[in-house]
Amino acid sequence: MARIVMKFGGTSVANLERIRHVASLVAEEAKGGNEVAVVVSAMSGETNRLVALVDELDADTPEQGHRLGGAIEDEYDSIVASGEQVTSGLLAIALRRRGLKARSWLGWQIPLKTDMAHSKARIAEIESSAIGPSLSEGNIAVVAGFQGVNDTGRISTLGRGGSDTSAVALAVALKADRCDIYTDVDGIYTTDPRIAKDARRLNRIAFEEMLELASLGAKVLQTRSVELAMNNNLPIRVLTSMSEAGDHNPGTLVCHEDETMEERVVSGVAYSRDEAQITLLRLKDKPGMVAKVCKAMADANVSVDMIVQGISRSDNAANLTFTVGKRDLDNALAALEKAQGEIGFEALKSDSDVTKVSVVGIGMRSHTGVAQTMFEALADKGINVEVIATSEIKISVLIDAEYTELAVRALHNAFELHEAPPLKVSAP
Amino acid sequence: MARIVMKFGGTSVANLERIRHVASLVAEEAKGGNEVAVVVSAMSGETNRLVALVDELDADTPEQGHRLGGAIEDEYDSIVASGEQVTSGLLAIALRRRGLKARSWLGWQIPLKTDMAHSKARIAEIESSAIGPSLSEGNIAVVAGFQGVNDTGRISTLGRGGSDTSAVALAVALKADRCDIYTDVDGIYTTDPRIAKDARRLNRIAFEEMLELASLGAKVLQTRSVELAMNNNLPIRVLTSMSEAGDHNPGTLVCHEDETMEERVVSGVAYSRDEAQITLLRLKDKPGMVAKVCKAMADANVSVDMIVQGISRSDNAANLTFTVGKRDLDNALAALEKAQGEIGFEALKSDSDVTKVSVVGIGMRSHTGVAQTMFEALADKGINVEVIATSEIKISVLIDAEYTELAVRALHNAFELHEAPPLKVSAP
Repeated sequence: MARIVMKFGGTSVANLERIRHVASLVAEEAKGGNEVAVVVSAMSGETNRLVALVDELDADTPEQGHRLGGAIEDEYDSIVASGEQVTSGLLAIALRRRGLKARSWLGWQIPLKTDMAHSKARIAEIESSAIGPSLSEGNIAVVAGFQGVNDTGRISTLGRGGSDTSAVALAVALKADRCDIYTDVDGIYTTDPRIAKDARRLNRIAFEEMLELASLGAKVLQTRSVELAMNNNLPIRVLTSMSEAGDHNPGTLVCHEDETMEERVVSGVAYSRDEAQITLLRLKDKPGMVAKVCKAMADANVSVDMIVQGISRSDNAANLTFTVGKRDLDNALAALEKAQGEIGFEALKSDSDVTKVSVVGIGMRSHTGVAQTMFEALADKGINVEVIATSEIKISVLIDAEYTELAVRALHNAFELHEAPPLKVSAP
Repeated sequence: MARIVMKFGGTSVANLERIRHVASLVAEEAKGGNEVAVVVSAMSGETNRLVALVDELDADTPEQGHRLGGAIEDEYDSIVASGEQVTSGLLAIALRRRGLKARSWLGWQIPLKTDMAHSKARIAEIESSAIGPSLSEGNIAVVAGFQGVNDTGRISTLGRGGSDTSAVALAVALKADRCDIYTDVDGIYTTDPRIAKDARRLNRIAFEEMLELASLGAKVLQTRSVELAMNNNLPIRVLTSMSEAGDHNPGTLVCHEDETMEERVVSGVAYSRDEAQITLLRLKDKPGMVAKVCKAMADANVSVDMIVQGISRSDNAANLTFTVGKRDLDNALAALEKAQGEIGFEALKSDSDVTKVSVVGIGMRSHTGVAQTMFEALADKGINVEVIATSEIKISVLIDAEYTELAVRALHNAFELHEAPPLKVSAP
């Protein structure tokens, strides 16, 4: 007997038919004698519908001609949290109709306590003294994901994708044996199968690799949920909710490095199209220049990702190139133009037609030659690299967006990711 | 300065435009220096949408071929209460955008405590120690109607129309000066204006009269909300939410008899088409016979309304006629057929093509001649009366449904309800 937390996202509970199917998957785990808590998102489209109501109301300019009254995130949270409230009740009913004992739990009923930041709250504490005994008595707990309650008794939400974090945090609080994240894909792949037909589902992946992949745009799991699982040594299984109860549905286990079992250097190739490149031309090359640029960006609330500084061959002046999120580009350019005198550069150019492609692998720590393989593979296809950034387990390059698919396929081939690697000799 | 509770039903908050309009009406009261709490229903159609989800899910027969798992009212309540949660948040935002201080309050946040009966809970207690001081500090409280929380911390709902009761109970708990119920009509009329074109809006009506009218089918206010207001001497004003802020919008004040001010015998003519008539023919006339009939109906969970016992001229045997709700007719007939030997009657007939028409007036207590005027008016139009029932302030007759409009108009004329009555000489 194990204690399991299962999490189902919006597409998995999109309508009553899907909710009944989820009930069959939950029933299968419960019948095996396990204690089961289920975390659900809102029915897909529902959160967007509620957010659109708030946006439309908020966009309304009152007669006074300007918007009054300050922040509305507390009310936003109360409104959008209703989506998960509905799904949790419906799934509890579907489970009862299969003869199981089940009840819904809202964030404030557990309570799942958060900090005071509305619409992007962080979990402070999960009280297990009510829900834990209920599980032990054989009740299935159906928990509304994405929501909590703060110290003033107002509903808070964890931000988009927060239901993953709800599930992992709940699993930690309940001392669950594992957390199963059901989604619309059947696991984590070596790369996007829409780009490389021979992409392969990974049986296991290390937490650190998953973190790099998640933050690089392979958005299967919310980054914070992976961090939380890693810090608490809680295995996460990513698997599809589309399979039938009783089917073999192995998914991908996200776990500690020493449990990954396979001998491999690179685990996957990720890409992100959400990038934009900015170059400052002919900077006055003096100390503190990069710090000034970073300060201008921070003041504009823009995150800077890859940075490279180079010497222009033509005029021997320094250029600085860096990337920001595509949606932040306009803000970033405005802030730079404003600070041009302060920073001291001659001209500014930008390009939002770029993609960041990365290879990720925990084996890179102990293997050399990954960079060489990577740059040879890109050069072979005539792909020009604009910017390079590396971490201990990742190498990222910025390339012209036109070459995205070509680069992903070339790297997937170069690291032979379509083939299952040999098992570790020292595997436990 | 007064403390006022305003309540808006589903059609008054049907969409964002209506919600903004409600905000303008609330702002008008708040600008007058009043402390204001607002109780809102779900956007119209929303409760029906949520109930339909539950019904469709619940109607589903699982593979086992029968429904399992017992009651679902606790989850039903959690699901449908989300409708008011959304409206309360949206109205709070609309008020802030007008520069006012406002926040939403859900049932469990107040808390509004109820008994354990799900989907038709009764209010046990309203805690005013949080919401009261918030009002005193100049915040507008936007309260989700229809919902509360029970002693186990589950969400409960008060049943359809429960938002009226939420509003009145909140007004009592907050020691409000009055409770304004905004609806889609501009007050209580002497009769249905769709039937009698000269129906007149009443400026004031006594609680007792309102109770008789509400239970007779003039469904502007939920019966329990009127009882609660009467017991706590809280004036209710019924008025339209369709007027503009600042308009003269007097509505109808529901208050104690001695504050009604006008000298009149009959205040209104009500009708209900939800009736069915049952006659038991040639009963063995022995003691306890009526009690047996009532027991059979009670066992079948059917309420009996009007009862009349007569002697058939043809065969000198006793007949018993009574009315039940139209929707209960099939159940009632089945129960009577089953108990035919026990009760002892020869035959059974029923008619669901009947209407109950009533005249209601607190002045009937001290004035004679109302019955005579009523029956003469009906006889003049050739309308046959099947059953008669009276209370201290009401006379009801059961007639063929074909004559409904004719009877209502004849009675409205006979009691000259189109004309404003003189003021009481002794009015305060």
